[in-house]
Amino acid sequence: MAMVVFCTDYGLADPYVGLCHATLRAHAEDLDVVDLTHGVPPQDVQAGARVLADAIVWLPEAVVLAVVDPGVGTERRAVVLRSAEGRLLVGPDNGLLVEAADAEGGIAEAWVLPVRDPDPAVPLTFDGRDVFAPAAARLATGADPEELGVPLDRTLLVRPRTPSEARVGPGRIATEVRHVDGYGNVQLTARWDAPERAALPHDTWVRVSVGTVQAGARLVRAFATVPRKGIGILPDAFGRLQLAVRDGDAAERMGLAVGDRVVIEHGS
Amino acid sequence: MAMVVFCTDYGLADPYVGLCHATLRAHAEDLDVVDLTHGVPPQDVQAGARVLADAIVWLPEAVVLAVVDPGVGTERRAVVLRSAEGRLLVGPDNGLLVEAADAEGGIAEAWVLPVRDPDPAVPLTFDGRDVFAPAAARLATGADPEELGVPLDRTLLVRPRTPSEARVGPGRIATEVRHVDGYGNVQLTARWDAPERAALPHDTWVRVSVGTVQAGARLVRAFATVPRKGIGILPDAFGRLQLAVRDGDAAERMGLAVGDRVVIEHGS
Amino acid sequence: MAMVVFCTDYGLADPYVGLCHATLRAHAEDLDVVDLTHGVPPQDVQAGARVLADAIVWLPEAVVLAVVDPGVGTERRAVVLRSAEGRLLVGPDNGLLVEAADAEGGIAEAWVLPVRDPDPAVPLTFDGRDVFAPAAARLATGADPEELGVPLDRTLLVRPRTPSEARVGPGRIATEVRHVDGYGNVQLTARWDAPERAALPHDTWVRVSVGTVQAGARLVRAFATVPRKGIGILPDAFGRLQLAVRDGDAAERMGLAVGDRVVIEHGS
Repeated sequence: MAMVVFCTDYGLADPYVGLCHATLRAHAEDLDVVDLTHGVPPQDVQAGARVLADAIVWLPEAVVLAVVDPGVGTERRAVVLRSAEGRLLVGPDNGLLVEAADAEGGIAEAWVLPVRDPDPAVPLTFDGRDVFAPAAARLATGADPEELGVPLDRTLLVRPRTPSEARVGPGRIATEVRHVDGYGNVQLTARWDAPERAALPHDTWVRVSVGTVQAGARLVRAFATVPRKGIGILPDAFGRLQLAVRDGDAAERMGLAVGDRVVIEHGS
Repeated sequence: MAMVVFCTDYGLADPYVGLCHATLRAHAEDLDVVDLTHGVPPQDVQAGARVLADAIVWLPEAVVLAVVDPGVGTERRAVVLRSAEGRLLVGPDNGLLVEAADAEGGIAEAWVLPVRDPDPAVPLTFDGRDVFAPAAARLATGADPEELGVPLDRTLLVRPRTPSEARVGPGRIATEVRHVDGYGNVQLTARWDAPERAALPHDTWVRVSVGTVQAGARLVRAFATVPRKGIGILPDAFGRLQLAVRDGDAAERMGLAVGDRVVIEHGS
Repeated sequence: MAMVVFCTDYGLADPYVGLCHATLRAHAEDLDVVDLTHGVPPQDVQAGARVLADAIVWLPEAVVLAVVDPGVGTERRAVVLRSAEGRLLVGPDNGLLVEAADAEGGIAEAWVLPVRDPDPAVPLTFDGRDVFAPAAARLATGADPEELGVPLDRTLLVRPRTPSEARVGPGRIATEVRHVDGYGNVQLTARWDAPERAALPHDTWVRVSVGTVQAGARLVRAFATVPRKGIGILPDAFGRLQLAVRDGDAAERMGLAVGDRVVIEHGS
């Protein structure tokens, strides 16, 4: 069965997600739609990009439909990307899709979708329903991107700032905050095996520095072994390191936001 | 594939929506269920009615199942409506469905569903699961309403207060608040093209009056061009005008609630 | 169509539920997945157990996939249970599934699932996606539990504390709080017909005692007849009694939590 994986910042309080679902079904019989999440923080393109890039490698064959789109109604482009691995992604050209395509080998091809009113009696202000969902439904059920849009030079795509990869040396990991999830767990750019590479053994205490502020943290393997007081450092669901606290919000506790630099060092 | 579009005020914190989904599947194999939203404010029949009326014209062929039902367990009727365009709607007779049917040409026929306990060992207090979902599943898969209920004189249906349509004159739009969405965007009864009809040009400032309070607002076409400070007036996703603020809650900022009168005039 | 009913404490702000959906589809074509709820309070195994036990008797033929799993990453077992009625349940061995299986006649058989990394390059810290969802998908589409795991002596399963059943005598119901739902409605262990058995007639006032604190409450049949001020006692959706207040949170108002003892008596 053809599948669309759908991700937005629309939330679930209003009928916006439901209307896109209805539109997807109207354009393709027997389409399977998986909601990745609609809880991306409103208009936070960067957070949406990180969620997609983390998730995409776990997805089966499916078209990705993603809409976090503060520029809706302006001249920003609507695009379809094809990754090197052959997956199609549909959404606004604001950087939302690029990291995800990069996680599948980079962008092989790109197309611009026309943005026009489906019903001339109503102005188009809801591109999720009116532009992106119809395109995703048609692509999932076999349409060629050439039928829907016109080719676009890949180098013209809007590219987001990419977070810096971690620097790992003996007894030291210099990294930055890549994403904060809905629980306040702080995902770092450092990979899960960075402590091992830095010769920082599991089940020991280390020092975490954020600017001039320092705190003790424990390298653990599971949420259940994060210390009652203090911070835990452990692998997340996507192969990176995260900072977590018990029954609480690590980002708030440590005052951390995306892009902040974090150093993890021997000592406590 | 048969489809049910499902809308409630149940929220998603509890298993109430999930149990209705399970019941829909138990009564009809291969049913496609689209969740329009379950975030209607609790027991707010009027808000649910507006959501349905806005959404219905965008829906493909499907039975509408809607439950916002503060009167569950009382003598209020359970009903099926058929709109002039042939769509079936299932829910409580408290005004929830009427505006939506009106948006599809009015109510052509109505039936009353019997409310009875599916399991005599358990009293019926969850009509969504026990009355409405089974009826919707059966109707979606081809049952005739005559098989499920008895005809009801349409004039006996409970009718909600209908919001007043806007009055548009040269340089002036007199309207009222029709709905407030989950972001606090304020939907007016005025249609999106009211400014043009009032000779109030786009990309200019106007004066918005609510009672004796006045504020400047800018007529724009997209969220991205709502001014950083001040209020934007722009088309919503359903063909009406809305008031919005940047990264904030327009209803709260202006102290607006459904039914409040709003005047938009030349000048600033 | 094969069906999985899915219940977690993951919430919907992050892509965790969506990734499990994607994994379910990747392991089984044409699988129908019903989300019971993902709003179980985080890490509250007991609340999840109650939700499942209440819901299970209303479910059609389907595999139950449930994950509320504070012990993920530790030595706790991953299990499949078969109830006496033949339903399969998949989740962690922390008591989450036992009450639900008991509601279907008890546990007939149990198996332990191996927990291992699907991708050796990434450590396994997301058993919902990596262990439980693949197993549920395979079981729903016909795999035998013997193919997936090894038999486990049922008596070795972790068992939760079971709430005490109510004691009902003339004019008196001694019960305890079994669950608090997302609206703050307080579910008691007493069955819906306990007032009748205690000769406490409907539409009368009774006295509710919690420790040394007492309050008046009215025995009613529907939310609409809960008194404007004061507490209502009425049947819930699952055949038990509940305490509710109008437009408010009964648990907060009465300071009640799961396990608290409540006495309902003649008098006011």
